Amino acid sequence: MAKPLIECVPNFSEGRRTDVIEAIVAPFQGRKGCYLLDHRADPDHNRLVVSVVGQAEPIQEALLAASLVAVGKIDLNIHRGAHPRIGAVDVIPFIPLRNITMEECVQLAHSFGRRFQEATGVPVYYYEEAAIRPQRRALEVIRKGQYESLRQEVAQPERHPDVGEPRLHPSAGATIIGARKFLIAFNVNLATSNIEVARQIAKAIRSSSGGLGSVKGIGLALEGRGMVQVSMNVVDYEKNALYRIVEFIRMEARRWGVAIAETEIYGMVPAAALLDSASYYMQTAQFDPGQVIELAILEYLGKEEEQ
Amino acid sequence: MAKPLIECVPNFSEGRRTDVIEAIVAPFQGRKGCYLLDHRADPDHNRLVVSVVGQAEPIQEALLAASLVAVGKIDLNIHRGAHPRIGAVDVIPFIPLRNITMEECVQLAHSFGRRFQEATGVPVYYYEEAAIRPQRRALEVIRKGQYESLRQEVAQPERHPDVGEPRLHPSAGATIIGARKFLIAFNVNLATSNIEVARQIAKAIRSSSGGLGSVKGIGLALEGRGMVQVSMNVVDYEKNALYRIVEFIRMEARRWGVAIAETEIYGMVPAAALLDSASYYMQTAQFDPGQVIELAILEYLGKEEEQ
Repeated sequence: MAKPLIECVPNFSEGRRTDVIEAIVAPFQGRKGCYLLDHRADPDHNRLVVSVVGQAEPIQEALLAASLVAVGKIDLNIHRGAHPRIGAVDVIPFIPLRNITMEECVQLAHSFGRRFQEATGVPVYYYEEAAIRPQRRALEVIRKGQYESLRQEVAQPERHPDVGEPRLHPSAGATIIGARKFLIAFNVNLATSNIEVARQIAKAIRSSSGGLGSVKGIGLALEGRGMVQVSMNVVDYEKNALYRIVEFIRMEARRWGVAIAETEIYGMVPAAALLDSASYYMQTAQFDPGQVIELAILEYLGKEEEQ
Repeated sequence: MAKPLIECVPNFSEGRRTDVIEAIVAPFQGRKGCYLLDHRADPDHNRLVVSVVGQAEPIQEALLAASLVAVGKIDLNIHRGAHPRIGAVDVIPFIPLRNITMEECVQLAHSFGRRFQEATGVPVYYYEEAAIRPQRRALEVIRKGQYESLRQEVAQPERHPDVGEPRLHPSAGATIIGARKFLIAFNVNLATSNIEVARQIAKAIRSSSGGLGSVKGIGLALEGRGMVQVSMNVVDYEKNALYRIVEFIRMEARRWGVAIAETEIYGMVPAAALLDSASYYMQTAQFDPGQVIELAILEYLGKEEEQ
């Protein structure tokens, strides 16, 4: 079996100062076993989202190095931005990709949380699958009132961090570390300018109003394009396959005689999510991802490295 | 850019003697940059088909080592089997996969052909894209009458080999070397036991009777399963996408009120072929294969090795 493969998507509270952004990203570059897939700095959000995949050990080394830069350079007391945050290193999720279980990623989050707190002095909250207090599964609960409120309320027992003393780092705040499934950002654009169609369909498909269990979604207007969008996060693509989401929306849109104009996969996607949908539409029987040349090579390279 | 990646599918005229098969396959195993995807020995055909992917240099080294074994162990004068052949090493096609052009694979076939002839003393014919004489693009033309006829006719100018003297190797015959596109073996099974339906659809879709330019196909009965099959080779999946083949057959089958029961991808398939079909059915706009995590990692690993 090839080496375990994880994704990690750390969010840092800096989206404006180019030199700081570059210094945070640098430790993720040119490191064996740590592959920087993407990094996006948003000036309005004043936030940097880094996406890396690879092996746990080199990713953790890079995270620690990048976090020390962020903690040294970002002062939450003067940080302003549209996105909620409680820390210079705001959120670090570990995501299982191949040959690693969610339980192992939870253990990784916990051991990394302790290392992180020791190295930086920043207290840590565990969220999602790694949550120790059940109510902290939801990011919003931990981040309630953001840095400005948490600074005061951290002394209250129900807001104590999971690792470290019950006070925030004076400039870098606190950090949320956890484990979660891979999330696919998936949009379906509809051939109508009627926003109500997108809103009704989003309501029908999203989990929170009783739709598909792993779909979050809202209806949006795509100004200037004469289309509306069902904008979704698929939080478990194994439970709610992409093809099922497409066909669900196609079925609902028929109520208004509206067609699907196009779909969009935003950012990264695991091969399995697309192969599963190809397999559905093409009715391939007994298809094995090992038949895909590139996946077979990747499996080989993983084995080679182990030797 | 990641390293060029090729596939090679050498065919050897031995499908029965296990020790000889193992000795031929051994050089392809445990060699860096040469990944053995599959090998199948067919006793009826008395033939071994090996499928490897990787970089040109290690693949050529493995090919030479395996060919020396085959030339030493296989005597065409006593070889019998259902599959046509002219040599112990019968056919060696080089197939471009990534970051390499067909023209470069043709050059590779030509330079390897000279190396092969020098190392083994076996004369070489070039076929498909690597053919020097236009009529030799087709394997059947080179292999006409098989070893037994070619042994006599090789002295005639129109049957002279492209490399080496105009006589066969006394026991190993001759070898056909070339470059071609990746071939996908794709079957569509129909929910009927009427063989005529499969035959008519195969006739409608195959290139030779005026159908899709890159499809070869025949109609077969799947005895005991109550289904019939359109059994195809797709010789250029970029020109005739898999989804188009599925929908073409669905349309034709409607004439008899017959549905597609399932499809089968036999053997290896490049990721691009499936992603393209997923993209068609799901209507994904501006989808980039680099968004697929595994393909992004493979690209990275290729770059790392270059450094």
